[in-house]
Amino acid sequence: NRLRKNGIPFRFCTNETQRTTESLVQKLKRFGFDLEVGDVFAPAPAVRQMLIKQQLRPQLLVYPELLPEFQDIEQTDPNCVVVGDAAHHFTYEAMNKAFQLLLRLQNPILISMGKGKYYKEGNELVLDLGAYTAALEYACDTKAIIMGKPSKEYYSAAIESMNLKLEDVVMIGDDINSDIGGAQKSNMRGLLVRTGKFRASDENHAIVKPDAIVNNLADAVDQILSHKSTNCIK
Amino acid sequence: NRLRKNGIPFRFCTNETQRTTESLVQKLKRFGFDLEVGDVFAPAPAVRQMLIKQQLRPQLLVYPELLPEFQDIEQTDPNCVVVGDAAHHFTYEAMNKAFQLLLRLQNPILISMGKGKYYKEGNELVLDLGAYTAALEYACDTKAIIMGKPSKEYYSAAIESMNLKLEDVVMIGDDINSDIGGAQKSNMRGLLVRTGKFRASDENHAIVKPDAIVNNLADAVDQILSHKSTNCIK
Repeated sequence: NRLRKNGIPFRFCTNETQRTTESLVQKLKRFGFDLEVGDVFAPAPAVRQMLIKQQLRPQLLVYPELLPEFQDIEQTDPNCVVVGDAAHHFTYEAMNKAFQLLLRLQNPILISMGKGKYYKEGNELVLDLGAYTAALEYACDTKAIIMGKPSKEYYSAAIESMNLKLEDVVMIGDDINSDIGGAQKSNMRGLLVRTGKFRASDENHAIVKPDAIVNNLADAVDQILSHKSTNCIK
Repeated sequence: NRLRKNGIPFRFCTNETQRTTESLVQKLKRFGFDLEVGDVFAPAPAVRQMLIKQQLRPQLLVYPELLPEFQDIEQTDPNCVVVGDAAHHFTYEAMNKAFQLLLRLQNPILISMGKGKYYKEGNELVLDLGAYTAALEYACDTKAIIMGKPSKEYYSAAIESMNLKLEDVVMIGDDINSDIGGAQKSNMRGLLVRTGKFRASDENHAIVKPDAIVNNLADAVDQILSHKSTNCIK
């Protein structure tokens, strides 16, 4: 709300692919966030845009709750495979269906909504879509196009949705590698927060050096607003 | 039978991991082959030997019909994961169970009975265990030990079971890459047959040059017997 009042454009940039953006926004609203669907940038709408632009007809290997995002996209006679975090829907049958299409296509296009290795579900770590994307890449001798953090294509699409340039944008995140490292590789600046998955060792990470480290999102906004006048983050 | 009569040791070396060697031998006998379990070298018994030697307790991600091969191996408190061609049993749950153990182990050991990408099942191509092994390798940042063609470890174990040296052995096969290329990389000679998955283009393969090409297995045996006197294959 403070960023909005100060006329600073922003997006909530997520890798969530198990629900529609609409459903995600409803959830965040229940947590007290005041936001609209247009404020969120998620892999599924980004892939949707890409499919439209490139006239691709997807065979979807995604979580059923995500299907509504693609309901107006032509899906007969598919010419690409789109992988989301399908979780229990990563069956041998579904994987074979994706594999068989890729093998049949003269120009196999595999699009994955991220390349995460695993995530926490309840009390246990479970395989993320990246593992299944790696399986298809190996079987088909192909490389997936990644539409999710930390891919530069994905960050670029998010920044394009605000009509901004990468070098004018700050990424705020709790993941030293994907959020901060990925943002910096994409020519953005990266601001690490000491919340969520942050670990003390991130402050002296061997490879990734955040442009700034702050206690939480509110402090990050303070930093951005205090530097607005000087037009400089660091 | 002709090799046997001439006192030439041999093994039928397979990557079959959906049934026990005993069951495979029964099948081959029905096809008219006269052979015993001891004549066959398959990934499961090779892995079994490895587990015993290295005192490993496996968590098995294999086809149920293969389980009898491991029935006398301790499997409580597992300290490694063994992957076979589990096919429909490559469920999200089973993959997570394997992944979670590997992540828990201080020294994660992943053993895979081959690294095949796909194979023909009825009329369609389906994913082979290699794709699922690649998924676990990616998620756990580890490299699998491959116990199946074309790995040198596997060929060496097969040759060891005959008390021979690799350089004294000829591999006869129809797969230019895995059989012939793999054998040559392991210091064996490779004899390609023009049957099975052989394709005309294999005769002038860009990378793999077989030591000889023959029409079928019977001709391969002719070659070996005719060269026996001169103690030289080529």
